[in-house]
Amino acid sequence: MSSATEYEDKTVTRGELKYQGKAKQVYFTDNPTILWVHYMDQATALNGKVHENIPEKGQLNSAISHILFEHLTRQGIENHYLSSVSETDELDLALDILPIEVVTRNYASGHFVSKFNATPMQKLTPVVQEFYYKSDELDDPFMNDSQILALGFATLSELTKLRAYAQEVNQALTEIFDEININLVDFKLEYGRDSEGKLILADELSPDNMRLVDQKTGKSLDKDVFRKHAGDVTVGYRDVLSRLENLEK
Amino acid sequence: MSSATEYEDKTVTRGELKYQGKAKQVYFTDNPTILWVHYMDQATALNGKVHENIPEKGQLNSAISHILFEHLTRQGIENHYLSSVSETDELDLALDILPIEVVTRNYASGHFVSKFNATPMQKLTPVVQEFYYKSDELDDPFMNDSQILALGFATLSELTKLRAYAQEVNQALTEIFDEININLVDFKLEYGRDSEGKLILADELSPDNMRLVDQKTGKSLDKDVFRKHAGDVTVGYRDVLSRLENLEK
Ligand SMILES: Nc1ncnc2c1ncn2[C@@H]1O[C@H](COP(=O)(O)OP(=O)(O)OP(=O)(O)O)[C@@H](O)[C@H]1O
Ligand SMILES: Nc1ncnc2c1ncn2[C@@H]1O[C@H](COP(=O)(O)OP(=O)(O)OP(=O)(O)O)[C@@H](O)[C@H]1O
Ligand SMILES: [Mg+2]
Ligand SMILES: [Mg+2]
Repeated sequence: MSSATEYEDKTVTRGELKYQGKAKQVYFTDNPTILWVHYMDQATALNGKVHENIPEKGQLNSAISHILFEHLTRQGIENHYLSSVSETDELDLALDILPIEVVTRNYASGHFVSKFNATPMQKLTPVVQEFYYKSDELDDPFMNDSQILALGFATLSELTKLRAYAQEVNQALTEIFDEININLVDFKLEYGRDSEGKLILADELSPDNMRLVDQKTGKSLDKDVFRKHAGDVTVGYRDVLSRLENLEK
Repeated sequence: MSSATEYEDKTVTRGELKYQGKAKQVYFTDNPTILWVHYMDQATALNGKVHENIPEKGQLNSAISHILFEHLTRQGIENHYLSSVSETDELDLALDILPIEVVTRNYASGHFVSKFNATPMQKLTPVVQEFYYKSDELDDPFMNDSQILALGFATLSELTKLRAYAQEVNQALTEIFDEININLVDFKLEYGRDSEGKLILADELSPDNMRLVDQKTGKSLDKDVFRKHAGDVTVGYRDVLSRLENLEK
């Protein structure tokens, strides 16, 4: 693994490990505003209780993320992605991540179905938006606005922005997936504050954090394949990537 | 148990059992706009998985509810309570109950503490308001606005009203309990639609649905005593009732 790269005509050097995640390793660099992120070949489910090495997953997620972040950038949606270093590594803007996961649901699936006895794949109108507190210890509890405010995890103005921003991302992603005959069922986003307190989209945009269903076959092209032990998860990821790559041409 | 009573110079006769609840029996009357509700001597916890006969609980809850509903009426807060029939029975306005429980939390307690690792009895600012879907089968799942709207359990205008109305009830109840040196920690309300679709406060206002803590001793005067097997729950209920009765004098 190389430990230096060029970014905007300057050399950026990988430094110490900042965070060992379940799917990525995050390193400091010699530039305090830049992080070096490595996508691992690892999958987890049930908040990390189940994990497995899955060859190639890192580079698939990395490649899919790059295409989607660049698509958002073209749509005027700011995000943390700066540049690619290698097939598995990238440079990102260093942010102060909010302890909140923002989930958007266009169709009923997963927990939403079991929790409310909803009809699987029922279209959700309005689109459902959910906030979860990022805490492995507490099992990422679902929260409403007043709980988040009372516990000081975000301000009201931040929650209002998160909802609006996630809705913009939903529109942009729904469109691009629609062009490659895939339904964007639901997805999870993370946001961070930059040095001026502005909220910027962070983390990754990959089938690890989305439910993607082929519009023709109804097949899952995402991590549900892993969650349900339904075969080689990378088959779907590779399919998603090649459709996105064809679109770019 | 008598089966007829006078209300507004007319005789109201108890009819068939409409609903056998965990704490109350609800009967139709010969007047379709009026229900006859009997408070039982029964306590349940964990959504009915644990239950026990507790002599006198019915009449204590009934008496406390009446005082509190009448207090709200004096404060201009409409509610379903019409009149008392006996120590355990009352007449209520028949409503179409929303499938939503409205929980208000002034201090952190119970699930709120365990779910978010909050400090017990931490003052919550802003006051926390939560909606739960009334479904024993699904274990009363916690919901946010967009979920409720997408599943059609209530309209946005109803949710906005529920929050405002519950906040008014919170102010009125916090005040009366403060006068008798009790902290209103949290409580659960139910609302129903009348024949014109107007939302009206329903169900009961008793220590079965509230957490009440003595301001001096810090002792629980509510159903937590039962949930925690910490002794005779009616001791606290009787204490609450006698303080409310003294206040009325
Ligand atoms: N731009 C950024 N600046 C700082 N941290 C980031 C940025 N983007 C993502 N992160 C954080 O880096 C980590 C990525 O690692 P990974 O996705 O493996 O985490 P994880 O195992 O899912 O755990 P977590 O529950 O923390 O998300 C996450 O904690 C994520 O919040
Ligand atoms: N004014 C009203 N009109 C119609 N139904 C009412 C009214 N007030 C309360 N109810 C309903 O009457 C029942 C009261 O019974 P009880 O409190 O024992 O129910 P429960 O066992 O708690 O079950 P539930 O989960 O239905 O509340 C509840 O279902 C409540 O929603
Ligand atoms: Mg992650
Ligand atoms: Mg009840």
